[in-house]
Order: sequence, then structure tokens, then C-alpha cells
Amino acid sequence: MTHAPVEVGKNIKNAAVRQCKMPLIPRGFKFAGISAGIKKKNIKDLALIYTETPAIASAVFTKNRVKAAPIIYSQNIISRNKISAILINSGCANACTGKEGIKNVELICENLTRAMNLPSRSVIMASTGVIGEQLPLKKILQHIPVLAKNLSPEGLKDAAEAILTTDKTSKIASTKIKLTGGDAIITGFAKGAGMIQPNMATMLAFILTDAKIPEALLKRSLKTAVDNSFNRITVDGDMSTNDTVVLLANGSSSGSVKKSSDFESFVKALTDLCYKLALMIVSDGEGATHVVQIKVKSAKTESDAKRIAYKIANSPLVKTALYGKDPNWGRIMAAAGASGTRFDPEKIDIFFNNVQVVQKGIGTGNDSTAKKVMEKKNYTITIDLHEGKREFSVYTTDLTYEYIRINASYKS
Amino acid sequence: MTHAPVEVGKNIKNAAVRQCKMPLIPRGFKFAGISAGIKKKNIKDLALIYTETPAIASAVFTKNRVKAAPIIYSQNIISRNKISAILINSGCANACTGKEGIKNVELICENLTRAMNLPSRSVIMASTGVIGEQLPLKKILQHIPVLAKNLSPEGLKDAAEAILTTDKTSKIASTKIKLTGGDAIITGFAKGAGMIQPNMATMLAFILTDAKIPEALLKRSLKTAVDNSFNRITVDGDMSTNDTVVLLANGSSSGSVKKSSDFESFVKALTDLCYKLALMIVSDGEGATHVVQIKVKSAKTESDAKRIAYKIANSPLVKTALYGKDPNWGRIMAAAGASGTRFDPEKIDIFFNNVQVVQKGIGTGNDSTAKKVMEKKNYTITIDLHEGKREFSVYTTDLTYEYIRINASYKS
Repeated sequence: MTHAPVEVGKNIKNAAVRQCKMPLIPRGFKFAGISAGIKKKNIKDLALIYTETPAIASAVFTKNRVKAAPIIYSQNIISRNKISAILINSGCANACTGKEGIKNVELICENLTRAMNLPSRSVIMASTGVIGEQLPLKKILQHIPVLAKNLSPEGLKDAAEAILTTDKTSKIASTKIKLTGGDAIITGFAKGAGMIQPNMATMLAFILTDAKIPEALLKRSLKTAVDNSFNRITVDGDMSTNDTVVLLANGSSSGSVKKSSDFESFVKALTDLCYKLALMIVSDGEGATHVVQIKVKSAKTESDAKRIAYKIANSPLVKTALYGKDPNWGRIMAAAGASGTRFDPEKIDIFFNNVQVVQKGIGTGNDSTAKKVMEKKNYTITIDLHEGKREFSVYTTDLTYEYIRINASYKS
Repeated sequence: MTHAPVEVGKNIKNAAVRQCKMPLIPRGFKFAGISAGIKKKNIKDLALIYTETPAIASAVFTKNRVKAAPIIYSQNIISRNKISAILINSGCANACTGKEGIKNVELICENLTRAMNLPSRSVIMASTGVIGEQLPLKKILQHIPVLAKNLSPEGLKDAAEAILTTDKTSKIASTKIKLTGGDAIITGFAKGAGMIQPNMATMLAFILTDAKIPEALLKRSLKTAVDNSFNRITVDGDMSTNDTVVLLANGSSSGSVKKSSDFESFVKALTDLCYKLALMIVSDGEGATHVVQIKVKSAKTESDAKRIAYKIANSPLVKTALYGKDPNWGRIMAAAGASGTRFDPEKIDIFFNNVQVVQKGIGTGNDSTAKKVMEKKNYTITIDLHEGKREFSVYTTDLTYEYIRINASYKS
């Protein structure tokens, strides 16, 4: 079975992904989200995803050298077992918590397994919040029966809410695809916030499908989807201690990935859905007032395009200029030049949407028109290197007073 | 002649470097700083350094792929000629200005050469300010006679003032050393501001000495000094389009670098002086309220220590926590883990000055004591990896509301 190249986001507006007030619920999945008192205020902080039929699973975890306890535990479980349930807490990352942190995850997962009579080693856990504190074990164990009692297909919204930290809104997307034998649903929810990039803000995403799909194809599809969505807003090397993307497939629909065209549909739908969630995450970046696509085109290699795009997207000087609606393209040129790639500065063209501000490395004098583009909430800055045929895009946010306010005292 | 290892900054408090209200002036150098109307307000924006005896020169320029016109011009001149004068303007970077930008530098330097009857090709130029605008050629040419007329040894302060951009204060340091045959003076002035690192804020430094020193040793001494000072606050790959450090030696004193011990004294004094200027630059970082040393020790290699130190020093999440006086050591752990180096997180100790907040990867509970350390304007965060014997330190500033304010509308 060959894997056709997926054109991500090109038709995103036409895509059948719902940005969901009324999400579709994949068959056989139930959810709950409650307040267990982990956070100071009486807000939801504990979520459960459950599938009666244990699901095959694929996951992408942080590449950070410092991994949170739930990741160390779950990585081991998910590589060898079908999954019945995922428990997620916000308010405490359970990272840098040593052996006690891992033991707590084990205790919680075993407790849930017994309480719900699940197959052994079929429960995993994810956490987000402050690093360095132990989980409030008692509170979580006390609330496991409450969670189990609250499970329902409609519990999705509560679950999506319970995993949030500094996010302003919950992030849910769902889609339906035609496969051999019938339809299948894919539904996902996520949390992000933080400046995402180049930061250590935790990104969590849980994607659930009732499609029947072989495990090898499930893994391949998630890799493609993540590379073309979440990895366009997060550099691998900069992931947090807790980043987790999990995809579960419980095979409860009649739709089956059998033919090459099924796989293409599945990958396309999954990628579009992840892309949608990724955009929701970046749009909800801490304090962000603008979401800007940085598109580097006509590079010699994709790796060059990527390095330049990220260098621009991460430059505090560029990000503050985006906030100030200041078409200071010199900062874009300087960031590109500092990326460590080879290019001829005298060939560069730069555009803010369609407004050209730099031609062959020199300003065009269109700054006042460019300033109008920068009034928009979303726009694209294109850097055309005229060096080759490869390109790379990344989404970034502006750097604002609000970002400082949120992060100067998140912990204390 | 061997080059003894220089212990940088260890005895900085005892060093004979003056942080200068009354700087020493090396023999044979004169200076001027005036307002030529390049900046909007009537403030100094044009400086001249002049030596009657043409000086041997060494320089370090930006490694940015996008180089400003004065750098392209001066790099060529300085590699083959003795230098009589350096003209510096603020208010316009003359970067991304194409052939016209370079032609303007040529015209200006030739004009100054004729006006002052200097040897041909003995004038270089440096610029700082907004990228993408052409120099106001006429204004500069008109003011060259005024500059020449204003030259005096005491003009140093005016020159140091004229090169500033968003700096709050001028930065001058000087020192005197004993060499074979007599004393020599080394005096330097610099501009910085910007968050410096990981940014593209221009750093300029001009260091003048009346020592007699062979050209090869002059070059070696500058490399050592820059590596141990300015490069501890600026990553090469992230330099601005205009970064320039120039060292001139006109040999006008009786002090001569002849013996190995002379060279050691010279390198030590030059390094201490550059280190002092570098600290002044970082302390004047845009909006900075804290200057924090990030010290990574017991690493396997210096390269590992450096990568971890810079990753922590550049993390917006760490920098906002420094601002908020929030001992959120989890962000330090996460940044270290995202550095791409290999280490065992369960061996890490972290200290705020002498207060240990992490022992073997786990919090010690000393956060409230650490918070008190963070009240100080200057302190050290030590990350002890317990992996090997190498270390690296870098200075960083906090990320503040003021940084956003300065940079959101620097141009417009």
C-alpha cells in the first residue's frame, strides 16, 4: 500500500473537519471530566477517556531529555498493549518527581484498572501543569469512582475542559470519512497555550477513532499527521517534559482501512484534524493577538527553509514587531541571516500577504501598506529566497505584554 | 611565545579596569561625537576615532549571512591596511541597502580621507540603527569637517555617547599595564542594548591601545578576549547584521609586548576590559531588571555545557520567571532537557547562588529561600550535571514588559 503525499491545509477551509460545537463521537468511546481539587480553584482538572473495546494505539511523546513520570510509564505500556483508558490531570505535571512520581502513576493506573475491571496494563496517564510537585495521590484516587460514574459519550466536552491549563478555550475537532464497509469517525481534543515555540509549554492531544485499521498503518498515519500539524508549531528539540499525542482506534465502526484509497482518506482526514487542532493551539498562544504564517519558499533544501522559518518565527525582535504592527522587515532579514544557512541576501523577496516589502534584498518602500496587513489577526509573511524549489511554513504568534504577565508568575 | 590560560572575571572586582568616569586616554588617539541630524531628535549620532600614527588593527565582525554595507567595506580595508580613523553613526544601520549602501560608505570614507589628509584606504566605518534605510549621505558629508574640528583626547565621552541607540548609558572602560619599556593604556567603549541574546541587537565595541605589539599577537589577543567576554553574552550564529569589535594599536607608548609575560599581561588586561564592557552591555539589556549568570558545571564536554547554558539563558519561560522572581526550576530542567545534549536528569543539582532548589533531579523545597535570592539584581544559577569536568557560563537578562514596549515599535 503506497502512501500518497498529503497536501496539508491547502483546502483546510473546505475540509470536512468540524471545529466543534457539536462534535461527532466515535462509537464505543466515553468521556468524563470533573474537578478533583488538584487546582486551587474549583475547576475541572481530571479527565478520563474510555473505550469498552480495548483500542490499538499509537503515540508521539516528547523528545525532551527530562521526561515526566506519566510519559516514562505510558511509553512502556502503550508499546506492548491495547488501551482501555487514558487518565489525564491538569494542575500538576508530575515531572522531576523521581521514583515517587512514577510509583504514583502506577498506583493510579492500577487503581483505575481494578475499579473499572479493565484488562491489566491497559491504562495510561498524561499530566500537565507545574513541574516539580508530586501528584495529590489521595485526591485523584478518591475521584476515580466519580470519574467512572460520569462516563458518557457526551462527556467529551467536560474531558476537553479538564485538561486545560492557561488555555482560554477547549479545543475539539471531529470528522467522518467513508471507508470500505462504512463510515468511521475521528475526533480529537487538545490543550496547548504557552508560546508553544520555542518554549516548554505542554501540548497534549488525544485522537480517537472507531475505524478498523491495522496497527502498522495507524502508526504511519499518526507520524504523517503530527509532522504536518503539531510539528509545524513545535520544534521537536524544544518539546516540554510532558508533550503527548495519543491516537486510539477501537474498530467499533463498520468502516475499515483495507484499500490504498482507504488509507489515503484516513491519513488525509487525520492530518486535517490535527492541523485544525494545531491552529487552535497556536491561536490560543499565551497573550497572542496575531497568528502569523512564516512561509519560506524557493530554498535549496527543505531543511534550509525550516531553519530559516523557525529562526524568524522564534525571534523575540520579530515577534514584538508583529505585536506592534511594525513592518520592520530588517529584523526578518537579520533573523534569516542568523539561521546558519547559506543564501544570497541580494536575491531575497519578502511579502506581507501580497504586499512586497523587500525586492532583491532592498526595501520597496511599501511599509505603510504592509502595516495595514499587520492590522489583521492572521496573515502570511513570505520569504522567497530564489535559491531552489523547496519550502517550509510554520505558524507563530506575537510576543505581548500579556505573555509576560501570564508567565512571570505562573507558579507562585 | 606561549599563551597562558586566562582566568576571566574571577578577580574582576580587583582588576585594574576602570569603569570610567575618568577614563585613561591612550597616547595619540583623539575622538569626537556630534549631532549630524541622522536621528530625529537633536542628539549625538556621529562619532570619529582618530590616531595620528596609523594603527595596526584586528577586528571581529558579525557572522550573520546578511552583512551591513559598512561591514562589507571595512572587512576588506582592515585586512590589508593600517587604520587612521573609524567613523561611526547611529540611527541608521545601512544594512539591506544594496550597492548604493556600499557606495555611500566608500564616498564617506574617501571624503574623510581627503578632508583630513589621511593615507589612502586607512578609514573604516561602523553603523547601527534601523535596517533597510540608506544613510543620509549629505548630512554626514556636511558634518565631516565639524567632526574633524572637534577631535580631542577628551572627546572620548562624546564619541561613546554618539554610538548609542536604545542604550540607557554609555559604556567606557580603561586600564593601564606595565610592559617591557614602559606602561601602555587600553581603553574601550561599546554599545549594546537589545536583549543581545538570542537577538539581533547590534553590538559595537572599539578598543584602542598605545602599546607596541606585533600584528599576529594583536589578532590572537582579540580572539581570546572576545571569546571570553562578548561571546559569553552573544551567540555567534545570532549576531546582528552590524556587529563589530575593532582593536587598534598605534604603538605610541614606550610599552612594548616583547616577552611572553608581556603578552600574558596584555591578553589578561584586554580580556578583563572586554569582559567589563560585556557586563555593562548585558546590564543595560532592553528593559532588563536582573542580570543572571547561568553556570553549567560538571558537564561531559564544554560544548554540552554551552548548549545547555544558552538554552536556559534564551528560554522565554525562564526569562519571564526571572522577571517574576519565581523560582520555577522546572522550566530550567525542561530547557536543559530540550538542549539536545545527553545527561541523566536524576543526577542534576540546581542552585540559586548558594540555595539548592534541586537535588538529584528533585525539588528540595527551598523555593521560598530561592525567591529571596531572586530579589537581588545579580545572582548566579548553577546547574551541576555531575557528568564530567567541563563548564560554561553565560550572562542573561530577564524578559520584561519594558522589553516589549521598546521593541514593539522601535521603527515606526
